[in-house]
Parts: sequence; C-alpha cells; structure tokens
Amino acid sequence: MTAPIKSIKVGLVGFGTVGTGVWETLQKNGQLISDRSNNQFKIDIVKAAVRDISKKRIEDAPDTMFTADWNDVVSDENVDVVVELIGGTTTAFDIVAAALKLGKTVVTGNKALLAERGAELFALSQEHSAAIHFEAAVAGGIPIIKAVQESYVGNDIESMVGIINGTSNYILERMTDAGLGYPEALKEAQELGYAESDPTLDVNGWDAAHKSILLATLAYGSVIDPEEVYVRGIERVTSTDIEFANKLGYATKLLSVVRKHSDGQIELRTQPSFIPKSHILSSVNGVFNAVAVKGDASGDSLFYGRGAGKEPTASSVVADIVDAAHTISSGSPHRGFLPYSEDSKVKSIDDTSTPYYVRFDVIDRPGVIADIAQVLANDGVGISGTHSPVDPENPDKEFVDMVFLLHTCTFGKLKATLKKVLALDSVNSEPVVFRIENL
Amino acid sequence: MTAPIKSIKVGLVGFGTVGTGVWETLQKNGQLISDRSNNQFKIDIVKAAVRDISKKRIEDAPDTMFTADWNDVVSDENVDVVVELIGGTTTAFDIVAAALKLGKTVVTGNKALLAERGAELFALSQEHSAAIHFEAAVAGGIPIIKAVQESYVGNDIESMVGIINGTSNYILERMTDAGLGYPEALKEAQELGYAESDPTLDVNGWDAAHKSILLATLAYGSVIDPEEVYVRGIERVTSTDIEFANKLGYATKLLSVVRKHSDGQIELRTQPSFIPKSHILSSVNGVFNAVAVKGDASGDSLFYGRGAGKEPTASSVVADIVDAAHTISSGSPHRGFLPYSEDSKVKSIDDTSTPYYVRFDVIDRPGVIADIAQVLANDGVGISGTHSPVDPENPDKEFVDMVFLLHTCTFGKLKATLKKVLALDSVNSEPVVFRIENL
Repeated sequence: MTAPIKSIKVGLVGFGTVGTGVWETLQKNGQLISDRSNNQFKIDIVKAAVRDISKKRIEDAPDTMFTADWNDVVSDENVDVVVELIGGTTTAFDIVAAALKLGKTVVTGNKALLAERGAELFALSQEHSAAIHFEAAVAGGIPIIKAVQESYVGNDIESMVGIINGTSNYILERMTDAGLGYPEALKEAQELGYAESDPTLDVNGWDAAHKSILLATLAYGSVIDPEEVYVRGIERVTSTDIEFANKLGYATKLLSVVRKHSDGQIELRTQPSFIPKSHILSSVNGVFNAVAVKGDASGDSLFYGRGAGKEPTASSVVADIVDAAHTISSGSPHRGFLPYSEDSKVKSIDDTSTPYYVRFDVIDRPGVIADIAQVLANDGVGISGTHSPVDPENPDKEFVDMVFLLHTCTFGKLKATLKKVLALDSVNSEPVVFRIENL
Repeated sequence: MTAPIKSIKVGLVGFGTVGTGVWETLQKNGQLISDRSNNQFKIDIVKAAVRDISKKRIEDAPDTMFTADWNDVVSDENVDVVVELIGGTTTAFDIVAAALKLGKTVVTGNKALLAERGAELFALSQEHSAAIHFEAAVAGGIPIIKAVQESYVGNDIESMVGIINGTSNYILERMTDAGLGYPEALKEAQELGYAESDPTLDVNGWDAAHKSILLATLAYGSVIDPEEVYVRGIERVTSTDIEFANKLGYATKLLSVVRKHSDGQIELRTQPSFIPKSHILSSVNGVFNAVAVKGDASGDSLFYGRGAGKEPTASSVVADIVDAAHTISSGSPHRGFLPYSEDSKVKSIDDTSTPYYVRFDVIDRPGVIADIAQVLANDGVGISGTHSPVDPENPDKEFVDMVFLLHTCTFGKLKATLKKVLALDSVNSEPVVFRIENL
C-alpha cells in the first residue's frame, strides 16, 4: 500500500504568455511528472493573480482561481510555491520578498530582479529557509542554472561565455546573412515577434548582462554589483564591420563573458564581439542561445537551445516547481542557491585583455599606415594583420577604411594608444573597436 | 551557532584513471563543494578497493585506505556511498547489487552494466530505497542525465540524437579531414590514447548503443532490452562514402537516435549516418560528444562537451556524489532514477524511416541508371538526386560508383527494393547504404 499522493500547490503571479505555458505544460504532462516522481506528489495550480480578472484565459480553469491582488496568491495558506512572472524590479520584489518571509518557495524567471536586488532576496531566502529557483531567468529553456549549480558543483568554473540574448543574435545574424542595416533588422525582428516594441533592454545589452551576472553569482557564490559590469549593446554595430568580420573569418555576436582570473577577480562584460567561424558558438543562429562553460574538471562544454518563448520558458519554470515539490514533499532542506562567498571583485574593464579589431576612417595619403603603425609600435601594441579594401571603381577615393588586427593587450592600453592615433591628422574620427574573443 | 558539518563517506571500487580523478577533484575542490552546500556536509573518500594493493597511487592517501577486496569497501559500515569504477557487467554487478542491498547509494559510470542489467539493479534500488546515480555513464562530463531526468522533467521527450562515442567521432573526423583510411585513423586514435588497444566496443557501436539505451530509459521510464536495438559501428565505413558525403554537403557521424513515435514505440538505433553540415551537430569534432534533445516544451537543445577522460568523468562522478550527499545528510528520499512505466516497445528497424544515400558499384554501360531508377520507381521509392563522378583520366572506366539520394521511406521497403536492384546484371555488389538524418 502506498501513501496518498501529496498535492503541491502552486500560485502564479502573472498569467501572460509564460504563465499560460506553465498551465498548459502541467495540464499536458502533469501525470508524467507525477510518474517520474514515483508518485511522491502531483502539482496543482490553485491560484493566479492577473491584471484583468475579467479576461478569460483558460477554458478549464475555475474562475475562483483568479484574483487581481497578488497578495491573495502569496498569503493563501494553501499555496506552497509562488511563481513570479510579472517582471520588473519593484512589485516583483515585493511579491518575492513577501513569499520568502512566509517561508514559501519562490520560482521566478526575472533576471533583472535577481541581478539588481539579489542581495536582499537571497538574504531573505537564507533567513526564512525558503528557496528561490530561477532556471528560467537565464537562457530560457536551457538548463544552465542547474548545470552550473549542481552538475558542475565539483568544478572551479574558469569561464562562461554566452550568447544569451536571442533578439540581438537574430538582428546580428540578419545583418550578416541578408546585409540588412541595424534599423531594418530590428524592424524585421519586431515584426516576427523576436523583439519587443520597446527593445531597449535587449539591444542595449542589459538583458544579457543581467543573465551573466546571475551566472557569475552561481559560479562564484557572491552577489555582484551591476554597476561594476561593462555593458555595450548592438545598437551601434554597422554592416561595415560585420562585413569585415565575415571576410576575416569571424562571426559577430553579442557575447557575455564571465571569467575568473588567477588573482581571484572576475572579468564580467557584455559586448558585440568577433568569434572565429570555426568555433561552435558561431553556429548559434537566430533566436537560439548558448553558453559555453569551462570548468577545471569538466573542460569545455556548451549548452544550446531556445532562450525564450512560451513553452521553453515554461519547461524551465516547471522544472523549478518540480525541484520545489521534491523538497516540500520530503521536508528536506532546499537546494536553491544561496551566496557562500565574500563579494567577488569585478576586474576593471581596462585590465581585461583580448586581441582587437580596430577600424580607422583615414585620409588615404602616403604614409598613413606607417604613421598609425608607428604609434602602435611606440606603445608596444602588436599588429597581427591589416586590411584595407580597395574600391575598384574608385581607386583614388580620399577617405578609406583601414582595419588593424591587434595582438592581445589590455583595454586600458588600447584606449591610451588609440587616443594618440586619433591625434594624427590623417585619422578622421573615433576608431571602431571590436574584441576578438579567445575561446 | 551552526551544526557540526556532516562527513559523507565515500568508498571507491577501482582506483584507476577516473578514481584518481575523483580523488584529485575532491582534494582540490572539496572546500568549494562544502561551501556550495552551505556547509551541510563535506565529502571524504575513506576506502578504495584496488587490484594491486602494493602500488602507491596517491601521495597523501593513507595506506589503510586501500584494500584488494571490494567487499571491504561495500560492507564497511562507515561507507555511505559506493562508487563503482571497475567496468564490466559481472563483478561490477555483484558490487552494485551488494551495496544497494545494504541500502547504500551507488554512483557508477558503467553504461554496459546499466544497459544490460538495469532491470535487476533498478529493482534492488527500489526495494532498498537506495539510489543509483550514473551521470558519468553517458557522455562523460556532459550533464545529460540530470538534464533529461530533472531539467526536462516537465517534457515529453520527442527525440534525443547523440554523438556519444568520442573514439568513433575522432576516427570519422580524421577520415574526413585527413583522408585517412579506417585502419590508419584507428591506429592514430590508439597512439593518441583516444582508442583502447581493444577498440571493439567503441568502433562496433555498442558503447554508444548502451548510452542511448540509458537515455531512452530515462526519458521513457522503462528498461529496454539491448537485443531489440539496432547497432552498426564504423568499422566498415570507407573513405569513398565519406568523400561523397562531404561533396554532397553532409558530415559522417556515428549517431545514436532515440525517438518516440505517435504510436508509443521507441525508435532506437546507432549507426554511421549523414547529417547536414549546416546542423550544429556536425560541428562536434574530435573526441567531443553531444546530445541534441527535443522536448515538447523545451524545443530543440544541444548539450556538448568532453565525453571521456579523467577530469570530465570525475566531474560527473563528483556531481553524483554531491547529489547523494544532499540526500544522505538530510535523510530525504533520493532522486535517483527508478522505472515508472511499462516496458517500452522498440520499433522494428524495418519500420523506421529516413532519407537514404545508396551507392552502387555498377558496370558503366548505357541504360544502367535507367534500369536502377526503374526498379526504384516501380517500388515507389523516390529519388531526390543522383551523383556519379567521372574519372577525368579514365572516362571509359568500366566499373563506376553510382550514388542515389532517396526520399524518406521505411528501411524495410528500402531493403526489399535494393534486393531487386541487386538482381540487375549491371549491379556488381551489395550497395552501401547510409541514412540521411532528419534533424
């Protein structure tokens, strides 16, 4: 004779695309989930807070399930797990904090909330022995949180390099493959639903940066101040540089780099970068996401999949709910993340090193290459290659693009040198700089 | 005041490459692991069974740790977790069974053992409430077991397609890139330590097949009889077909395919196959492994990394030990896999469908293409393309290779048709067949 199956009761705050996906996934695969738990539990959504209670969302959901007040969900004593799906960092904070204070497990996909206010929330999690699960916060349906936290628990994580904003990746791909300009590619992404009507957080790099902060927090055990993170988006990437990259054997990707240095400092930056086309990360196209993880034991690995969307995100939310259900049904301590280390020091961007691509807009006259090369040489910045296309129809063009590929040096050194180059009469405007990533 | 940290005591059976890796990883990152558990536990290797006890393995291990009798490890009442690392399916079975009967958690990377004798062992696991963890059994350092079992717990898994034998992948890559024949590529792999002196289980496909059986067991909840699985290795792959594949835009890979059909039957096969070079799986080179997973919610994803080797395998073994440590230290029910479904029916290979590449060795005389095409047409097998290279130096060559690319049909139908083609006078020998995978 087996014990009666325990019902784990879930309350959703927010019932939009992802909430509907969670509901549908549990409807479809709820029995499978119970089977896979060896019938330890079943999962029931019992309450959902929505903005407009009059809107009928789901045919087979009882009307009593819905409320306009998130407090009805959080404080419902039947609710074991609170799933926060409204986004933002203000009301969402209040919801998560209130749930934790009641000792309830929280599941959220809110990367901004955890990256901006993780310190407060993890403290509440610790104080009230209530877990925060956030698999959906990074890379949608890709289980990178569990991989870093549990599967690589025996690893000192050396680096994590991610393509973790699908919108940016789609736009850059279309600029590369179809030769579109940034505005056209963005417009297309919006028409296809890959970019929001206000795409700011996607294209300015902050969505990816928030995710990379969470990855660093997981890997190194401490909360990181977003102010210390270097973030550049894709808004100013031009077809000119994408074409040069392509010719030189590189793909242009919005990369988030997390790397632990031997001095213990964490390199943490998000920016459009060049990666060799031969690297598996360059195969990550469209709205797909990927994170390359290097652990001291695991070696190089890559996790690839859908970084957003109703079902993939629901897949991760449901996995978190099931983790919570295991803990709750057995009464055991949770395995949600808690900080375990002093604050990590983020390496100054000026102290981070890569090779670089630098494009100058120069006046094409004798000696210009020599002049630039001399400034670089004086500062000890090595040149690994140069590229200056000739316009066959206009060989006597006055202004030309002059590309230099530079050996690895610190960003600080590069900036100082470029300032001197800019002082040359023959150089017209601020050079365009891309990092070439060492993967 | 915090509770004293609990010591989780581990016994190893086998202390070769992987065992040493586990020891070293715990020496190096043991503190980090405890920190990450919020100091719930620390992990101590207290006993190890080895073949030759006189051999000094580790400088800082006490001599009393080693024994020549695996029973000393399993029955040591201090040992909470038994790690089986000797391989094989006989003594290894006795060790794992004995440990489970004592209620001890087992960690193993032994794919053959679980694929061949999983039914007995999972029954013991169930009976004695003792978990079997086996992350290292599939794809080395890639956390595919946990991903399928926990991260995709809310998904009905539609398919899993894996490159899960690094030795075969390396050999096929060298045959492709360096134009080596199979014997030369195998020899090189052996010299580099990528193939064993007896490479049988790697090159005959069974190592990959065992892994795919475990993936199917995890995804569909039932033990699968290896007898029902279709397995072909790479031993008979020739440079001729690899070159044709390359010209036609395909990479040749030893693929393991697991796919659930709408009738509930499981397609389960391992064989050298062609995949489009544009697919991300074709970027999996050298000894790397990858598994592409498609869940009904998660959509397409891919897990990539090192499929073997001391440290990557140790990374997975240590993750399993940590999972066990959480369960043991909290006294909660384990989350090791247990079957939850009736036996899955494996689809007959004759009922599985893909497009195909078929190469005939034909006598080059007028009408031969027409004759073959007519036989195919009579049986309703569609041709999507033909390819027959001309030897520029010998345009009047008598025997030539004639390649047909065929539209999707069942393997049974293909075999019946090819039998008729073989009856033609102009066809010299059994055709060579590769599947072109629909990914």
